[in-house]
Amino acid sequence: MRRIVTLLTDFGTADGFVGAMKGVVLSRAPDARVIDLTHEIPPHDVRCGAWALREASRTFPVNTIHVAVVDPGVGTERRPILVASRGQLYVGPDNGLLSLAAPRGDGDAFLLDQPALHRQEASRTFHGRDIFASVAGHLAAGLSKESCGTPISTWDCIEEPRPRKRGDSILGEVLHSDRFGNLVTNIDRDALQGDEDWEVTLAERSVGPLRRTFGEVGPGEWVAYLGSGGFVEVAVREGQAASFFSTDASVAPVSVTLCRKAVKS
Amino acid sequence: MRRIVTLLTDFGTADGFVGAMKGVVLSRAPDARVIDLTHEIPPHDVRCGAWALREASRTFPVNTIHVAVVDPGVGTERRPILVASRGQLYVGPDNGLLSLAAPRGDGDAFLLDQPALHRQEASRTFHGRDIFASVAGHLAAGLSKESCGTPISTWDCIEEPRPRKRGDSILGEVLHSDRFGNLVTNIDRDALQGDEDWEVTLAERSVGPLRRTFGEVGPGEWVAYLGSGGFVEVAVREGQAASFFSTDASVAPVSVTLCRKAVKS
Amino acid sequence: MRRIVTLLTDFGTADGFVGAMKGVVLSRAPDARVIDLTHEIPPHDVRCGAWALREASRTFPVNTIHVAVVDPGVGTERRPILVASRGQLYVGPDNGLLSLAAPRGDGDAFLLDQPALHRQEASRTFHGRDIFASVAGHLAAGLSKESCGTPISTWDCIEEPRPRKRGDSILGEVLHSDRFGNLVTNIDRDALQGDEDWEVTLAERSVGPLRRTFGEVGPGEWVAYLGSGGFVEVAVREGQAASFFSTDASVAPVSVTLCRKAVKS
Repeated sequence: MRRIVTLLTDFGTADGFVGAMKGVVLSRAPDARVIDLTHEIPPHDVRCGAWALREASRTFPVNTIHVAVVDPGVGTERRPILVASRGQLYVGPDNGLLSLAAPRGDGDAFLLDQPALHRQEASRTFHGRDIFASVAGHLAAGLSKESCGTPISTWDCIEEPRPRKRGDSILGEVLHSDRFGNLVTNIDRDALQGDEDWEVTLAERSVGPLRRTFGEVGPGEWVAYLGSGGFVEVAVREGQAASFFSTDASVAPVSVTLCRKAVKS
Repeated sequence: MRRIVTLLTDFGTADGFVGAMKGVVLSRAPDARVIDLTHEIPPHDVRCGAWALREASRTFPVNTIHVAVVDPGVGTERRPILVASRGQLYVGPDNGLLSLAAPRGDGDAFLLDQPALHRQEASRTFHGRDIFASVAGHLAAGLSKESCGTPISTWDCIEEPRPRKRGDSILGEVLHSDRFGNLVTNIDRDALQGDEDWEVTLAERSVGPLRRTFGEVGPGEWVAYLGSGGFVEVAVREGQAASFFSTDASVAPVSVTLCRKAVKS
Repeated sequence: MRRIVTLLTDFGTADGFVGAMKGVVLSRAPDARVIDLTHEIPPHDVRCGAWALREASRTFPVNTIHVAVVDPGVGTERRPILVASRGQLYVGPDNGLLSLAAPRGDGDAFLLDQPALHRQEASRTFHGRDIFASVAGHLAAGLSKESCGTPISTWDCIEEPRPRKRGDSILGEVLHSDRFGNLVTNIDRDALQGDEDWEVTLAERSVGPLRRTFGEVGPGEWVAYLGSGGFVEVAVREGQAASFFSTDASVAPVSVTLCRKAVKS
């Protein structure tokens, strides 16, 4: 079986870093299939990388090896780890990057502390090539996860705010905006409890009922719907909802409220 | 035979959408080879995607499966289709995107109306993953095109303006500018009728004779030549011809005239 | 053995050029594995491409075929070549692009003068598709390097300034800045002579001792270290050192000085 190794980084591609990682994987596992997830995570944006890794990785066949590197702490004390979760293997820094795809308590983790599996003369600034790609190549060549290092009991996890219930309403916030300027909230399918009759408010703006798809409104109009990632999204059809807000949600979170519609009598 | 599946989208890569599509293809067809054509089509620009798909796809081996997704109408009534044309298979929305690579009247088409071939719980906003990649995966695993859906007799096509003849001249227009700022016109090899003795005018600007290559002029000079896609192009060598014009050709088309040179007596 | 063919270009991906190259390779060698190094080299920037090719290619298994195309002189007299160096094969224009990965005097070179190996009706403006990808496909299908063309004794090489010694100091300059704004100098491991006790000055700015990694300083602080490519780098941790300087080093080179620390008595 020719193993699949995916790559997700914030390296861009102009510098040759990504190519160097691919060469290391293929040197260890000449039959591996190397698949790009993305190299366009904004530099050092661990949270954005964690979102993309969750979205991108969960459709892959079991035993896929995902190498993820958004690593502002390379060369510090942060640990290099492997997490096996839900049939997938994740290799990367222990800084939260892996944790939305592989949440704590849902998998086995290992500290990558076997220098023999790293590149000779591993650099102190490019663990993507010298540790993560190298270990992934050995895994793709057939090494067991248990051989990669010492078991560890926990790993660093990104905490995302949970939606709250208040009477007939669900209070959430915008966590992310995508390439199309669509705003992804933290209100997931479970929070809707199978009910689709909701009125949606974004900050102070009414965006109408929760719809099935943005095709139900005209171009340029606001619309809310349950998105492909399983979260409620708010968008402007064929427009950029994100342009109405600061992109830095950490400064001022944008609130979203779903209010249950009055039952028709 | 390990089938080739190519991907062309306007998704960028920062969000994980593209990775999710790759995972779906490989889950259906573990041996498929997934090849990126591009994910940098400008958002919602169906015409640009159709140009790139034509240029990129026609060199591939027969039976390659091309998945193309530039799909502003996802979730509306636009149809998901498969077109088999010139030995290649094209999977995508019926909005013109496939039509420059697979012109009407030159292939078989099928409506993708078999839910069993789609992802379970297909979303209403991400047919790239849930319908197109899923059907492509089944095709790559050996499913016949006829099994993908109901035959249809026609599909949506982009109409491109044809060059016109007027006396000894050919009147055309700029359709596209590429990464290097070169302007691609609608005057193709056929329109030249085997004759290469033409004088070229772009809007009101004389750009000299039609040349064999831009190496015949100096850096910074204007030049016209028959480009690699089979169309006359106008460029500034090592410069950006496109910077002289509005990029929105739909507002004011830029005219190109080829005038037959006087026969040498 | 399924051969690996890598691609490095300045084409971007929005136009379909890269896809067309991949199709040509796979048409010649259906079993080849096509790996993207990068397509985001700045247009016509041969030196930047040469840096990335050196960094990206040297980790690949022996007999990998690297196709590199940054080719402002396409259609002029510049030669298409193949260079076999250090176990790798490089295919591209003879304009210096291959020369940092495959330095003169360290390999065999061939002029690609066999039209039968090129695409029929090779264009005069897209040798990436019509010559380089086509020859690479034939190589991947098993053709020997000797069959690709006439041996040549030399090829065009980029000259990089060498660091100079002056007393207890090493005088170098900044050659490159990467995605993270880190400044890469021409002072390599050899120049350090196994000694790590150096004080570093960038232009007029003291950046402290040569450190093992940027994790040794706080965010926002300047730091110098031996980088992953084997050269001394100067950076601002989690910042953009490059933003302090003009990006055009050809106008005013930025000097770097390493001064041996006083021996502790």
